[in-house]
Amino acid sequence: MLLKKIRVGIIGLGRIGKIHLENLSTKIEGVEVIGVMNPSKEGQLFANRFNVPLITDQANDIIHHPNIDAVIVCSPTNSHSDYVIKAALAGKAIFCEKPLDLSLTKVKETLEVVKTSRVSLMLAFNQRLDPHFHEVKQKVEAGVIGRLYTIHIISRDPEPPPISYIKSSGGLFYDMTIHDFDMARYLVNAEVTEVFAKGYNLIDPKIGKAGDIDTGVVMLTFENKVTVIIENSRKCAYGYDQRLEVFGSDGMLKTENPQKTMNYYLNAQGVHTSRYLNSFIDRYTASYFNEMKLFIESLQNDLPMPITGEDGLKAMLIAEAANLSVEKQRSISLNEL
Amino acid sequence: MLLKKIRVGIIGLGRIGKIHLENLSTKIEGVEVIGVMNPSKEGQLFANRFNVPLITDQANDIIHHPNIDAVIVCSPTNSHSDYVIKAALAGKAIFCEKPLDLSLTKVKETLEVVKTSRVSLMLAFNQRLDPHFHEVKQKVEAGVIGRLYTIHIISRDPEPPPISYIKSSGGLFYDMTIHDFDMARYLVNAEVTEVFAKGYNLIDPKIGKAGDIDTGVVMLTFENKVTVIIENSRKCAYGYDQRLEVFGSDGMLKTENPQKTMNYYLNAQGVHTSRYLNSFIDRYTASYFNEMKLFIESLQNDLPMPITGEDGLKAMLIAEAANLSVEKQRSISLNEL
Amino acid sequence: MLLKKIRVGIIGLGRIGKIHLENLSTKIEGVEVIGVMNPSKEGQLFANRFNVPLITDQANDIIHHPNIDAVIVCSPTNSHSDYVIKAALAGKAIFCEKPLDLSLTKVKETLEVVKTSRVSLMLAFNQRLDPHFHEVKQKVEAGVIGRLYTIHIISRDPEPPPISYIKSSGGLFYDMTIHDFDMARYLVNAEVTEVFAKGYNLIDPKIGKAGDIDTGVVMLTFENKVTVIIENSRKCAYGYDQRLEVFGSDGMLKTENPQKTMNYYLNAQGVHTSRYLNSFIDRYTASYFNEMKLFIESLQNDLPMPITGEDGLKAMLIAEAANLSVEKQRSISLNEL
Amino acid sequence: MLLKKIRVGIIGLGRIGKIHLENLSTKIEGVEVIGVMNPSKEGQLFANRFNVPLITDQANDIIHHPNIDAVIVCSPTNSHSDYVIKAALAGKAIFCEKPLDLSLTKVKETLEVVKTSRVSLMLAFNQRLDPHFHEVKQKVEAGVIGRLYTIHIISRDPEPPPISYIKSSGGLFYDMTIHDFDMARYLVNAEVTEVFAKGYNLIDPKIGKAGDIDTGVVMLTFENKVTVIIENSRKCAYGYDQRLEVFGSDGMLKTENPQKTMNYYLNAQGVHTSRYLNSFIDRYTASYFNEMKLFIESLQNDLPMPITGEDGLKAMLIAEAANLSVEKQRSISLNEL
Repeated sequence: MLLKKIRVGIIGLGRIGKIHLENLSTKIEGVEVIGVMNPSKEGQLFANRFNVPLITDQANDIIHHPNIDAVIVCSPTNSHSDYVIKAALAGKAIFCEKPLDLSLTKVKETLEVVKTSRVSLMLAFNQRLDPHFHEVKQKVEAGVIGRLYTIHIISRDPEPPPISYIKSSGGLFYDMTIHDFDMARYLVNAEVTEVFAKGYNLIDPKIGKAGDIDTGVVMLTFENKVTVIIENSRKCAYGYDQRLEVFGSDGMLKTENPQKTMNYYLNAQGVHTSRYLNSFIDRYTASYFNEMKLFIESLQNDLPMPITGEDGLKAMLIAEAANLSVEKQRSISLNEL
Repeated sequence: MLLKKIRVGIIGLGRIGKIHLENLSTKIEGVEVIGVMNPSKEGQLFANRFNVPLITDQANDIIHHPNIDAVIVCSPTNSHSDYVIKAALAGKAIFCEKPLDLSLTKVKETLEVVKTSRVSLMLAFNQRLDPHFHEVKQKVEAGVIGRLYTIHIISRDPEPPPISYIKSSGGLFYDMTIHDFDMARYLVNAEVTEVFAKGYNLIDPKIGKAGDIDTGVVMLTFENKVTVIIENSRKCAYGYDQRLEVFGSDGMLKTENPQKTMNYYLNAQGVHTSRYLNSFIDRYTASYFNEMKLFIESLQNDLPMPITGEDGLKAMLIAEAANLSVEKQRSISLNEL
Repeated sequence: MLLKKIRVGIIGLGRIGKIHLENLSTKIEGVEVIGVMNPSKEGQLFANRFNVPLITDQANDIIHHPNIDAVIVCSPTNSHSDYVIKAALAGKAIFCEKPLDLSLTKVKETLEVVKTSRVSLMLAFNQRLDPHFHEVKQKVEAGVIGRLYTIHIISRDPEPPPISYIKSSGGLFYDMTIHDFDMARYLVNAEVTEVFAKGYNLIDPKIGKAGDIDTGVVMLTFENKVTVIIENSRKCAYGYDQRLEVFGSDGMLKTENPQKTMNYYLNAQGVHTSRYLNSFIDRYTASYFNEMKLFIESLQNDLPMPITGEDGLKAMLIAEAANLSVEKQRSISLNEL
Repeated sequence: MLLKKIRVGIIGLGRIGKIHLENLSTKIEGVEVIGVMNPSKEGQLFANRFNVPLITDQANDIIHHPNIDAVIVCSPTNSHSDYVIKAALAGKAIFCEKPLDLSLTKVKETLEVVKTSRVSLMLAFNQRLDPHFHEVKQKVEAGVIGRLYTIHIISRDPEPPPISYIKSSGGLFYDMTIHDFDMARYLVNAEVTEVFAKGYNLIDPKIGKAGDIDTGVVMLTFENKVTVIIENSRKCAYGYDQRLEVFGSDGMLKTENPQKTMNYYLNAQGVHTSRYLNSFIDRYTASYFNEMKLFIESLQNDLPMPITGEDGLKAMLIAEAANLSVEKQRSISLNEL
């Protein structure tokens, strides 16, 4: 079967945009990169390496390009919803980095336009496509651990981001835990009814002054009685810690962190292995490739998008409830929102 | 230095009583087993192997024996407080299996007698003396992971106990989680202020009919902003699961479960290792020895008891709050009790 | 079925003798310890704890005791063959610590007497009964890894023994590698045809002056084309290292060393776990119990001994060939001996 | 400091050639790919993706190109020495896949031309640059395990190559073990004096009929008394097995195989993790990048080549001795060759 070739344009060549460009140009079959938009010379030089026909600093050149089927939005967060709305109105399929926007209202408006435009929108919750978590999901679906009881998700960053980033991030639950909220919904395959959260500023007083927390623990209650615990920290002395455990009636699934090497050093003090990977770029390399491949394949086969704008909205509602729970010092029912 | 020999009597030769007898008779220095009380012939025959001078079916023979310095109470739970009170009034040092009683009032009364009698009482939260958890505690105390942020404790039994046991157990939080509540206080070295808990009957409807839950998740907030998560289950398909993780500013400490062997079998499907141990007796063998050794050494050196009746009382108050939290569907401040 | 009670006497209450006494007195069913022989007061006091009726300093009191069915020989090596011969002539079943003797001639003579006396003799190659190695053997027998190709055995002691011990040990291959030679025969279930060995004095010049090596590597060729590599060292900075790997057509089996705890400590430098166990007593605790239990059960059920004097002799012949190989700097065919 | 740009040409775009092209075009700084030679259209189309100016089917176009500084030879083995000789005579720096040739005489002749031409030649023993093995080497050099005693290297392929490949491979020791011989020399940093080897045809009779073995065990004795054991197999049921262990006076270093994921599945039978990687391409991805980067950097900084033709020659001499050892059934001194 000859699949149709998907012609894409990329808006934004920051860290993630470059990864998408390289994957689309050299590793994913059945796709052609028609154009990239980036305001900086550095990004444009990068695009040159891959023979991209159109290199521009105007998003409209991409959005309204007649030969482009799909737009990849990886510009700064505050421009996401604008580009998505324009691309939707232009009838393009859209792949957008999360979040669509930090405002719930804006997200709802954007999704409304996407819906009425009847275009495909995939939201980049890349962790779903991480080989570790994806394998857990597949085994859960296959029933190997039976009925789910409890899930434990840990996400700890090696170092806090700059305070400037913190200030425009929407806060820990919106910026970081959002991935874990989505992962929880993805694994449990049901909806959250109640959120209980604790959040503290324990790591760096500057984060507190910026109005954010750096340490969060959230307990989610699902409609089907599954309980999900999430632990987040903005700083982790031993590297980037991304794990989860799923406990069910017939067994347990858990992921461990990849390490720099699988070497062991044994001396009089004990057994020593290497540190965890240090950056989400290294940790999630495969997930960026997988999500883009899945986006392209879904378009080629006219399949519904595997991760939708609704998924983004629902994770945001949980984040909203978590913020409220910390503030009110009580558990929050999602019905209250 | 020649330490004084501690002369002990044991009340109750069930599973734990036998372990204490063997440890005291053959493995712990500076102690002499003067007498054991057990109603059954089988227990008395067991005692014969170790040359115990006095074997009786009357607890009073032990409690009032002039040559006995310390009484080990490992009879059924509902007799603990009576024996402890009698032994306290008789001026004996006491080692008592947990819990002192299932009634908070009775526990308080018993502790009052112990206090006014000025005798030593050690409560058998044996898990504190498990080599794995004890090493974690020592490292936490030594500051190797810096300031504590969050702790995660998992305790899952291979199989639920008989329904008859469930009925007289005081419920999951009083019977099983109580160990984890104590472990949390032990590791954090501070007091709990707030308890949020969820409890479900997911495993066996008979447990629900008996008025109990079989799955519990508890989130403890400590006065020093440490958050502790506890996951409990009455049934675990993959064996006896007893783990904890302590996360702090400078690193992380975690325990893994001992396995039957350290053998690996590699075939076309992957890498396979053995099942976890199946019983708390195997898992905690060393802890029973260690707690008894520590009790004897504390007596020999006139040291305060390392685990006290107060510790038992405080763990019970947390269990009480957890029950209330499940019932009221909200978080409970310990001040409310 | 009511099994006959086996009545045993123990000759020698050193480190291993005490372990056997405790296991026989308190842990193994269907056996009665009638007497122990030990020249020292300390050993005799130890025996008192277990209510042994006869405590003597004369081996003959044990060997010729009319109510003793089986004699456990755990006296110093140079007395083994004498006691075994006497016990055999007295018609007793015998459990003897390895080796029967350091002289091949003496071993052959002793086995001749055992044979003509038609008594049972079990030789204490305890490592066969170690739960780790035993499970490997069972899986090999069950065929889970198919046809055997190669085996790799590592045995490294934490520290060299005293020079006085070295001098009377028979040398590295006779004293230490002997266990590995037996393990190789046990796992391969065939006989060795050729031995190639290298031996060096790398660790302590005193060992070289005593005429011994401290580092040995041996390559055994079996009649069925299985190759076994053995690595031995008298000193291992990271603890007691006892591992093996068996590679076959359908997979691989390997054992890892038990560690002090299963705790992990993660910091900026990496992941750290505890040191291996430090002593063969800790490492092989279960094997001492298992071998004695098996001896008793074999007697109760009139089964042939699971480890025989022939096994000891064959391991010694391999050791002899290894010594010759180092000396002649060539491979040695067992036919040459 | 501005480093000079190295201009390279690639001869051969098979599996490895493509990897080198991609790494040189998109991942390594300070290099420009001027031309590639490949006879097939498919290879030429691949080169198109990376904007290579010259795409040809004539090796001479690369070798004699005036703007090319360095030639990467990754054509079939039987053409290596010809291209290397021509490139040397043309004054180019050379990176050549191993082996230079299967004939010792031809290799010596080629190295002679390289020497008299005074060009740089790096031989692609890529495993030296594998992050796992490289870290071991660095730690050995740093002295963390003290004086080396013994090394154990395991290399097992998931499946045998086609018989056609076997026939032109030079045999197991020349084709597969050659990497391990080089690794042994690299780690020990000394020369081999004696080789003892066993080789069998156990896996597939067709391999035997083609005149080769499929199972090899080699014991190398080094001038400094280090012993190295190598285990090779052409078939490994559990995946691609590439490990080594280095034991020294102060500790041990070992590598484990990377697995498909770090996921654990626990059920009633035990703990299960994923299979090892299946292909050397996946296992050694990083090594191909690292070796090429090192080649380019060595040229930029006028440094001697890290892996030389002499290294290739010495590994071949060991392979020769191993073949002889199997044939003569005795150990071979390298002086005999």
